[in-house]
Amino acid sequence: MSRWQPNARHRLEQAALELFAEKGFSATTVPEITARAGLTTRTFFRHFRDKREVIFGGEEMYERAAELLVELPASDGPAALIGDGLSAIAEARFEGRRAEIRQRRGIIARDDALRERDLRKRAALCEALRTGFVRRGIGALPARLLAETSVTVLYTAVDEWLARDDDRPLSDLIRETLDALRTSIE
Amino acid sequence: MSRWQPNARHRLEQAALELFAEKGFSATTVPEITARAGLTTRTFFRHFRDKREVIFGGEEMYERAAELLVELPASDGPAALIGDGLSAIAEARFEGRRAEIRQRRGIIARDDALRERDLRKRAALCEALRTGFVRRGIGALPARLLAETSVTVLYTAVDEWLARDDDRPLSDLIRETLDALRTSIE
Repeated sequence: MSRWQPNARHRLEQAALELFAEKGFSATTVPEITARAGLTTRTFFRHFRDKREVIFGGEEMYERAAELLVELPASDGPAALIGDGLSAIAEARFEGRRAEIRQRRGIIARDDALRERDLRKRAALCEALRTGFVRRGIGALPARLLAETSVTVLYTAVDEWLARDDDRPLSDLIRETLDALRTSIE
Repeated sequence: MSRWQPNARHRLEQAALELFAEKGFSATTVPEITARAGLTTRTFFRHFRDKREVIFGGEEMYERAAELLVELPASDGPAALIGDGLSAIAEARFEGRRAEIRQRRGIIARDDALRERDLRKRAALCEALRTGFVRRGIGALPARLLAETSVTVLYTAVDEWLARDDDRPLSDLIRETLDALRTSIE
């Protein structure tokens, strides 16, 4: 086996997701994943710290989320920042990946430890967005409320998007969800 | 030592909170807690499943939260439900306990495992409120958004309340926080 495996990361991800779906997350071992992918455990640990990281990927989304907010037009008010910021996240991280994200969400939903990790990931995204709003000059209290609301809207819209089979883009569902939230607390 | 200890639960809580504050949560053992309280470990386990339960208490708040929503006046629209429902929770669970809740929050903030448990508790409260809104006849999407928003408002207002030294009731801060949220996403 050569030291450099083309597409090793993708092959490991595919093998891992298949096995998690077949046997459950906690019953799947790293050697089983590498055996199915035809790669070594050493290669696995060059790409992932552990098998949980196959599900959640790196943490770079959070820093990127804060940067996206800072890059949006200066004329955007707080509400426009939520819509535009979340649409940018949708474009960068979700569009075109529905089947794969649906598979990952299904694996997470069936495992307690993964659900906990998912809650921590959600809290980390919220904290990154809060920092982004503060960097835009928004006060501490509204920045926190906007960050929490952004995360609520994103997670709700993503669940709706994953449950659908039509071609409506996630960014449309994000805008609808934000409108629904606004209406419901009027 | 007699089998029935008056105020055993309260004495165990006090001893545990003192030790968690002095030594940290993870370094404190159940025998240390019972030694300080002058009670047996057997008595401890009659009152608490483990030392985490001293911090978080039982789970009855969640069922109660859903019931509170159902009991509110039929004339309350969704937005009034948040304000009235959260004020009822504030009255039942928070008012008059600020020093003790501040101590608990400080212990949670310093321990990773407790922070995770706190996130799960928050998610469970959100789910209970969602159920309560659905029982009020509110549709699935607004029920979810109202539940998420309620939890955001409650946690934000509680942090503000814990940070203050004046006598403003938590229910005032809840209403102000809900107004601030509404204004920020207009």
